[in-house]
Amino acid sequence: MSPLFKYSASILIIISLIGCLVALLISNPINAEDAFCEKSLTASVKKEIASYQLLVDTIVEASVTGSFKGSTFEELAFFIDTFGNRIAGSENLENSIDYLLEKFKSKNLENIHTEEVSLESWSRGKESATLLFPRRQNLPILGLGNSVGTSEDGITAEVLTVKSFDELNERSAEAKGKIVVFAPEFISYGKTVVYRSKAASEAAKHGAVAALIRSIAPFSILSPHTGMQSYEANVTKIPVAALAVEDAHLLERMQSRKQRVVVNLKMEAHLGEVKTSRNTIAELKGSSHPEKVVIISGHLDSWDVGQGAMDDGGGAFISWNALNVLKSLDLRPKRTIRTILWTAEEFGYVGAQQYYKDHKNETHNWNFIMESDEGTFNPYGLNYVSGDKGSCIIKEIVKLFKNLNATSSTRSDSVGSDINLWLDDGIPGAAVLQQNEKYFWFHHSQGDTMDVEDPVSLDKNTAIWAATAYIIANLEDDFPRD
Amino acid sequence: MSPLFKYSASILIIISLIGCLVALLISNPINAEDAFCEKSLTASVKKEIASYQLLVDTIVEASVTGSFKGSTFEELAFFIDTFGNRIAGSENLENSIDYLLEKFKSKNLENIHTEEVSLESWSRGKESATLLFPRRQNLPILGLGNSVGTSEDGITAEVLTVKSFDELNERSAEAKGKIVVFAPEFISYGKTVVYRSKAASEAAKHGAVAALIRSIAPFSILSPHTGMQSYEANVTKIPVAALAVEDAHLLERMQSRKQRVVVNLKMEAHLGEVKTSRNTIAELKGSSHPEKVVIISGHLDSWDVGQGAMDDGGGAFISWNALNVLKSLDLRPKRTIRTILWTAEEFGYVGAQQYYKDHKNETHNWNFIMESDEGTFNPYGLNYVSGDKGSCIIKEIVKLFKNLNATSSTRSDSVGSDINLWLDDGIPGAAVLQQNEKYFWFHHSQGDTMDVEDPVSLDKNTAIWAATAYIIANLEDDFPRD
Repeated sequence: MSPLFKYSASILIIISLIGCLVALLISNPINAEDAFCEKSLTASVKKEIASYQLLVDTIVEASVTGSFKGSTFEELAFFIDTFGNRIAGSENLENSIDYLLEKFKSKNLENIHTEEVSLESWSRGKESATLLFPRRQNLPILGLGNSVGTSEDGITAEVLTVKSFDELNERSAEAKGKIVVFAPEFISYGKTVVYRSKAASEAAKHGAVAALIRSIAPFSILSPHTGMQSYEANVTKIPVAALAVEDAHLLERMQSRKQRVVVNLKMEAHLGEVKTSRNTIAELKGSSHPEKVVIISGHLDSWDVGQGAMDDGGGAFISWNALNVLKSLDLRPKRTIRTILWTAEEFGYVGAQQYYKDHKNETHNWNFIMESDEGTFNPYGLNYVSGDKGSCIIKEIVKLFKNLNATSSTRSDSVGSDINLWLDDGIPGAAVLQQNEKYFWFHHSQGDTMDVEDPVSLDKNTAIWAATAYIIANLEDDFPRD
Repeated sequence: MSPLFKYSASILIIISLIGCLVALLISNPINAEDAFCEKSLTASVKKEIASYQLLVDTIVEASVTGSFKGSTFEELAFFIDTFGNRIAGSENLENSIDYLLEKFKSKNLENIHTEEVSLESWSRGKESATLLFPRRQNLPILGLGNSVGTSEDGITAEVLTVKSFDELNERSAEAKGKIVVFAPEFISYGKTVVYRSKAASEAAKHGAVAALIRSIAPFSILSPHTGMQSYEANVTKIPVAALAVEDAHLLERMQSRKQRVVVNLKMEAHLGEVKTSRNTIAELKGSSHPEKVVIISGHLDSWDVGQGAMDDGGGAFISWNALNVLKSLDLRPKRTIRTILWTAEEFGYVGAQQYYKDHKNETHNWNFIMESDEGTFNPYGLNYVSGDKGSCIIKEIVKLFKNLNATSSTRSDSVGSDINLWLDDGIPGAAVLQQNEKYFWFHHSQGDTMDVEDPVSLDKNTAIWAATAYIIANLEDDFPRD
């Protein structure tokens, strides 16, 4: 071996060691947040949370491999197969609530009851869109929630396709008397959904007779997606429906070729009478502070297409089956764990808003609020909203989920849907972090079926729900809001 | 530095070097096939093929970044948007053929003509399946090609769901008078499609009144997939349709709960009159051996659902645009390159069978036959059927596609669909190797639209098609069959 070779080798090794060190530092940054937790979280609180490891393992074991293995899927599948979709205001939703009340009784859950919610119902009726020129073709649509309908013959008009509200403003003169099609690229649900919620009124302001939108979805097999929309006050209410992504592209291509595009739109949609629905509640009563609560929730209503298995059957079912798991393990926390299955979420959190009003004076006792409404796919931790101290506690809790490979945590501005009312008031809360990249492939479409759900992922979600709720409901001190 | 450290470092370096050597050997195996090619392919043939590099680069440049950039997509999109789907026997298909003949003329392609094909037409009409018990729910279906229909009231019967023909044999006694649902897991199209092609007759043998199948697809957004089926001689012809994957699962779950499941099936499907369609042909005439041919092909007919953009608009359009690219580059090979756009492929290669009969005496002059009927996704090489010597030539040709990252080659038993008749006779041929993992997500469904197609991938497919055909049509010696 030449001295030069030996020298090079030594250098290489030193570089490698430095590389390793850098890699270690990158993967374990000592950041400001960790430093804060180091200072503010007392050793005794850390120790207290760590002491739940055995109990978390027990809950996970019971949920994932033990006697509850597959139970969330099985219960959900029977429910979904029996009732199908459950739009707010439908008899079907109310029947499904009655069924669950009996189910809760059979599981000996506590304080089982419902609380009434008044809502304006909406009915889709028959609907169709037909491309008439340059070629006759059926365009599958789903009318948007709250949309008005058309006359029996429908609206036949030329189409103006735009990418954005800005483009519509620029082409305002062309919009009068037309069906305006909004075909924005899907950026994210949060960013793009404004084209669903405001399409009709924005188009009407420019004299359009109806509006169509490209479905708010990143992927499609000619599958339109419905969802809520609302009319602006003092703007003409025009019918609005969602096209499949593919058909929005078709109309765009035709327009780019300067072809005259004519569509006939027929919708029987109409607002119905005021109906009564119910939020559905069950509890595991706290042993020493029953008035203090940790809430786990999902919503029971769905859209009137697909089966509402993913949105939000899964979220609702992990929320009550988590209670069931805790109960069967004879675990009774100091504080109450309350399961709430919201109604009329899809109509704009109507059930949650009612609950917000009715329970305004009790929220000082609410420790933590959770909702699962973004799927129940394979979980990998918790997504939470909290103050800095609360954040430190969540970070300790997720360490206990190593058996589930779910030790990640992400601090967000908002999690869940119904629960944002309370999160905005400063009550801390969480949702499960999960691999829900395909959520919007199925969301509000005919594809929201039991096939999206997976028994093992549901079990894991149930376990995280049960364990997180139990630990927070049983901590020595109330969950901090600061 | 301690001597021990220096010693360890040396060992580490030696291990690394050995690792590198092993890795190199694994990535460049000197196998039997390579050894055969080394022996059998003369240096002059190798040199001849290598000499095409500049020409291949020119074809690729013209197709992917030059004047033809995006042209296959643009031509295809206009065609698809204008004609929509094109089932064999439809006026629409014949109109689309007339359109293409004019297009070919405008591009100065040669020997433009059609050859007549007689076929039995089939018409879907209206169709529906409704779950009546245990719950009422619409089940989207697509009747299978060649299926008979039902009476106007449809067939109302209990359902027996089975996973396989074997299970049906075992449960034969339960099948009489029922609608048999075949719900096999999707293994691969090749392995699972037998449940589409034989479902009706197999069910009828056990006294079933109708058959339904789980769509032959690995992924679904409640999207049924149609396709051809055939009735066995002397077995009662019963109606047969495809359910979405999700609904097959629904019926399976209901049966596993011992629920009585009743479905009403209505289908207007019926065989129509005998119609005439056409294979559509254009050429780039060979300069010195015009009687010798290399064929590039796809099929122009589609199913009557979706747009037939992927199956097989893309394959058809790269096949004629490749001629167009060669023509515009003033490239005229020694042998003729013939584009054939088959008709009635979906009905069982009817157009190809006719062509096989009509051109039986010419095939000694056929050098090579290519078909694109498995999508035109991002390509990475050639999938081919050939003798050992031919294989060596293909391996040299794909080396020229490094600018496309398409230097892979796979030797198969069968490629394409229509062309298997000739491949089975020993004529060598190829298809493009491409990333078509999602092909069966869209295949024969409403989701077969222009959204599945991508301009860059189409350009690359066109380039590979043009270059491969040109090189083989221009080689000094005929492409070997041994």
